[in-house]
Amino acid sequence: MSFSPFCFTLNSLNANDSTLISAVRSGDARALARAISAVENRAPGWSDLLKALFPHSGRARVIGLTGSPGAGKSTLVDQLARVYRKTKNPHPVSQTARDQFTRNQGGAPADDRYTVGIIAVDPTSPYTGGAILGDRIRMQEHFSDPGIYIRSMATRGSLGGLARTTADVATVLDASGRDVILIETVGVGQDEVDIVRLADITIVILVPGMGDDVQTIKAGIMEIADIFVINKSDHEGAERVEREIRALQSLSIRHDGWTPPIVKTVASEGVGIAELAAAIAQYEAYLQKENRALKKSVENWQERLVEMLRDAMLEKARQQLGDGNVARLAAEIAEHKRDPYTLVEEIAGRKL
Amino acid sequence: MSFSPFCFTLNSLNANDSTLISAVRSGDARALARAISAVENRAPGWSDLLKALFPHSGRARVIGLTGSPGAGKSTLVDQLARVYRKTKNPHPVSQTARDQFTRNQGGAPADDRYTVGIIAVDPTSPYTGGAILGDRIRMQEHFSDPGIYIRSMATRGSLGGLARTTADVATVLDASGRDVILIETVGVGQDEVDIVRLADITIVILVPGMGDDVQTIKAGIMEIADIFVINKSDHEGAERVEREIRALQSLSIRHDGWTPPIVKTVASEGVGIAELAAAIAQYEAYLQKENRALKKSVENWQERLVEMLRDAMLEKARQQLGDGNVARLAAEIAEHKRDPYTLVEEIAGRKL
Repeated sequence: MSFSPFCFTLNSLNANDSTLISAVRSGDARALARAISAVENRAPGWSDLLKALFPHSGRARVIGLTGSPGAGKSTLVDQLARVYRKTKNPHPVSQTARDQFTRNQGGAPADDRYTVGIIAVDPTSPYTGGAILGDRIRMQEHFSDPGIYIRSMATRGSLGGLARTTADVATVLDASGRDVILIETVGVGQDEVDIVRLADITIVILVPGMGDDVQTIKAGIMEIADIFVINKSDHEGAERVEREIRALQSLSIRHDGWTPPIVKTVASEGVGIAELAAAIAQYEAYLQKENRALKKSVENWQERLVEMLRDAMLEKARQQLGDGNVARLAAEIAEHKRDPYTLVEEIAGRKL
Repeated sequence: MSFSPFCFTLNSLNANDSTLISAVRSGDARALARAISAVENRAPGWSDLLKALFPHSGRARVIGLTGSPGAGKSTLVDQLARVYRKTKNPHPVSQTARDQFTRNQGGAPADDRYTVGIIAVDPTSPYTGGAILGDRIRMQEHFSDPGIYIRSMATRGSLGGLARTTADVATVLDASGRDVILIETVGVGQDEVDIVRLADITIVILVPGMGDDVQTIKAGIMEIADIFVINKSDHEGAERVEREIRALQSLSIRHDGWTPPIVKTVASEGVGIAELAAAIAQYEAYLQKENRALKKSVENWQERLVEMLRDAMLEKARQQLGDGNVARLAAEIAEHKRDPYTLVEEIAGRKL
């Protein structure tokens, strides 16, 4: 039987498909795309795939970047990816598996630079749920470098599932041996806050001249920032934004004692990106002390575990109800012939 | 035993407390405040309260208003409330119960104008979850008119619970005999989309000069608008916003055949508010035809029912796990000694 990693289809997903698993682990881009699609679309076999990949994850550094539309997130992420691709990785995590696989395929071994995975969470319609054109443009630009893998996710109107799916996709990328995973998202709603929370390091991107209302919204985002970036810092008002951040910082001290640094960038010209990478490395070193990284991860997993359980229980409840029954019961409630609170208590078998 | 509706405490909530129920139904503001707090905070007895109130709800017209920060939502909502307070209600829904109660208290009977309930969903931090100062200012302004009741809700970081709690609070207001319920929220994230979806009528507020990025975000909001408002329409660029909406409308026709009208307002000066009320009345008349209102309500209840079931199942799962166990299991997952997918399948008793 010939060994070809380039012919997986969604239908062929199978926990026993060690070929797909090892192809993903080797970092093969096509296998990775198939695996991510399966996980994102909850295709049959997705959970078995994650079960098999999970033990090989947990080694990547996951960096979340959030900011308003127009803050220049994509440009900053691209620039950061470039810097990592030029940086020698002292501990290449999956070199062995990757080289093994690549040799089997007759290819050249992977390089010794940091490899990067990018997950771009699309802020467009929860209803159309489309993929973004920009993604393809960016893909093309990096096409020649297999060390950068870009994937965009649509913000579907699923029941709180976006953060979870993003986390699962990050797990796949992680298991594929990517050293750095950059998750970029628009920082406004709860979904986005949940997404950046799954990161080891959270970067909040601000820009000068966004007006007071926008800054007000960001109050919530302030509290999750490990590093602040003032992008477009050559624009008027950059000093003011910096003063505002410092003022907010002086009001509340983080419980872990870390004071988030403020890095000024002009991402479109590559200015300040090396400084940002240095700030990230500094926070990373800080996380390694006193088991802080593990503590953070345990906290995140407490939330994620409960969310996963919620979704599983919901599916179970939905199956128990049956689709036709939901429609009939909803009609009875809409006509106020039945009250939903009693009904849910009856089905769940417990008091609300 | 004396009959005093002004001495309910959270502790005294009780399904058999027909005093609280009838006080809420009569529209008594203090009882209403207690009941809403109980529902919002999930205080003991909250679900029994809703069970008792639900059969008396379903008669109010629920209007959702959404727009970016700075779009002038609060001002518009206040102005709309004023218009309704000046409009004679041809079918006062709870006149009887209210008058009965008011007479018992020795007060004057309610007036014959539309009564209004306002729910303002606060877009501030999901972490601090604070109430807004503006609320108190607005409360004071309307203090002399018991026909307007204002309540603000904090956007807490609860697991997708904000939309549900808002819906429950709307049910309480509805059962209290408010003729019109205005729900105002910042239209950006999924949470907010869920909130406006529970409304019978959804109004999307745009303003001139918000820039292209902001308009891009609104693409998702576009699809849920029954009526568009261009507020601050005396500002430059109002015509352009109108052209953009028309252009987007020409691209997709709503499946129910309704073409959302565009109303221009200057809320701060009360301009266009009567026209907005007329547009609302027009859409309402449209909803009455061919059972459209009921159909919409059935669709909404299908989603809400599943969400309620999800939350109930989650609580059940959480109890089964126990808090200490969650922490221990999260630690094992964080150390990659255990995979979460297998664990969740084991607890939920079904394949993911």
